This record gives sequence, structure tokens and C-alpha cells, in this order.
Amino acid sequence: MTLWFEDIEPGTSWDLGSHTFTEEEIIKFGKLYDPQYFHIDPEEAKHGPFGGLVASGWHTVSMGHKIMVDYLYAHDDMMRANGEEPGVSGPSPGVNKMQFKAPVRPGDEIRFKITVQSKRKSASLPGWGVLLNIIEAFNQEDELVYRSEIASFSKLRDFKPGLRLRMGMALAAMPIIGKMIRRK
Amino acid sequence: MTLWFEDIEPGTSWDLGSHTFTEEEIIKFGKLYDPQYFHIDPEEAKHGPFGGLVASGWHTVSMGHKIMVDYLYAHDDMMRANGEEPGVSGPSPGVNKMQFKAPVRPGDEIRFKITVQSKRKSASLPGWGVLLNIIEAFNQEDELVYRSEIASFSKLRDFKPGLRLRMGMALAAMPIIGKMIRRK
Repeated sequence: MTLWFEDIEPGTSWDLGSHTFTEEEIIKFGKLYDPQYFHIDPEEAKHGPFGGLVASGWHTVSMGHKIMVDYLYAHDDMMRANGEEPGVSGPSPGVNKMQFKAPVRPGDEIRFKITVQSKRKSASLPGWGVLLNIIEAFNQEDELVYRSEIASFSKLRDFKPGLRLRMGMALAAMPIIGKMIRRK
Repeated sequence: MTLWFEDIEPGTSWDLGSHTFTEEEIIKFGKLYDPQYFHIDPEEAKHGPFGGLVASGWHTVSMGHKIMVDYLYAHDDMMRANGEEPGVSGPSPGVNKMQFKAPVRPGDEIRFKITVQSKRKSASLPGWGVLLNIIEAFNQEDELVYRSEIASFSKLRDFKPGLRLRMGMALAAMPIIGKMIRRK
């Protein structure tokens, strides 16, 4: 669903897919990136703050990201198969308000959802728009386990630079004038 | 450096340690959690937005977290070896303003730093304080590659519940009155 900026309707949600977290992979991720005892030791974890083993928050976030990338790529392939050209998204400038609301335990099936909350044209990057996306993750009991706000860039399909910008781009492309402009 | 709430001086920074990101581990993390071509395919990545392979932002974040946990545990062990009792930290309620400022490339040595920006006693959780921590990561040229603000709980050493809270706790512990209080 790499849509073009113009085709994105704020308020729309997409179900990205789900993943069942096993004890084995929770421990594996924990040992690599978050070796607190309640992420790596099922016995010790029983006496910890969650009363048992839970996934590292970064594990939940990373897995959700994987599922989103897979979804975007699959959607792009589908568009191409239909003879359409998928839109272009850029790297994310950052994440805001990331909250861990409930623990993810072994056997939990977590589904991830994205909602485009708002969109605007970028002031600093002509030809691009900025989306504010909400990522949410729910367990099999529909309990929210994780939520974050992630900004991302989305390319404009119908970008026509204004006269001033076009003149500037043309001038900047001429070797001597370009050098003068860039020197300022 | 799991210090007690009372012993934490806002504005203090700690160097947590560093890690050199190899091409092999960048690709391995990318395939598991962020399979965009500029995280998993060095050849294709040359034509991508970064002009080469770069680590997933979640890889940088997760590795920084690992280094922080190792640092905290090592410091706790050191305190115990000195006959001191380490403080108690609680799970993080969330992350704010996470920004990826510069790419992390194969061979980059990234060092992580934490600064306690401010502290306050928790209004909702008696006996605990809330810290606002800044995590920063720099490459070998001292360029900031990643920054985030992470809140965390820190236990008060000298917590003495006030008369009202103590009475409430005592009453709540009595079976019949406790049931009445909790029913409201």
C-alpha cells in the first residue's frame, strides 16, 4: 500500500498482519538486545514485575516493522501486476509517543495496524508530503499492547515545481551560475 | 548505575559503551526485522537513498538498549561487591521524540550515552520517581546518529508513606473493609 500522497485518505487504516511470539524467539531476541531476566529466564521471570516471561518492547516494535515492510512490498508487487506504478515512500524522520501498554507473553498472537492520521505537503522538501501514521498492536484478546506515532515521507505524484523553483533549479544546473548560487 | 532516586543528579551523563556494526549483522537484523533493500542488499543499496548499505534504525536502538542493560547490570554487581545495595528501576512507560539523524554504515563504531535530564516523584505510583532520560548515539566522527527521550521509573530509597496513605493501606488490608473500599 505504498500509495501516492494524493491517493491517501487521512483516517484510513490497514491491517498489516499478525505474528505469534514463541518463548524461543522472545529469549533469543532478549539475549541479543535486552538481556533483562524477565526477557530471557522463564523461571526467574515468575518472580519479576510481569509474573512471567515477556517479550522486549523492542522485539514487538521490530516485528511490527517487519510485518509492515512485508505488507508494503506485497502491495507494491500487486500494483505492478495490475499495471499500476506504486507510490514512493521515504525514510522516517522519527518516532513519537511510543507507548508499551500491556506485556506480550509467549503464545500471544499480536496483530499490527497502521492508520494514516493526517497528511501535509512538506515545506522543506518540495515534491514530498509528510504523513503522520499511528501504529497499533493488539493481542488475541483485542487488548492494545503497543502504540506509536511515526512520521514518514510520501512522494507527490503530481508535483509541478512553481516558476521560481523551476528557474532556480535550471540556474543551479548551469555550472558557473550554480557555483555562484551554492557559494552563497 | 541503577542509582536510587534520591542519588540521581539531573544533568548527569554516563557513557554506556560502544559497538562496531558489521555488514554481516546489519544484513542479519535487516532480514529478520526490516527487509528494505538498503538494509539487506549491499549492491542494490548503492542506488538507494543512502548510497550504500545502512543499519535499520531499530537495529541501532536495540543494540543501544543491550549496551545500556549490560552497563546497568555491571554497575549493580560492582555496587554489591562494595557492600552497597543497588537501586531499583522499573519498566519504561514509553519513548518520546525518537530521531534518526544520520545513517549507521558497516564498520561504524557507535557509542551510546545516557543523560538524566530531569526527575520528579510519581503522582500515580507512591514510592517511585519518574526520570526523563536522553539516549544519544554518536559515530566515530562524533556525529549524532540517533537521539531519543525515554521515561523510566526509579524507586525511592527513603519512601515513608504519609498518614492518610498508611491508614488507607492498613484499612485495605483488612478483609471486609478492603472489599468495601475496592468495591467503590
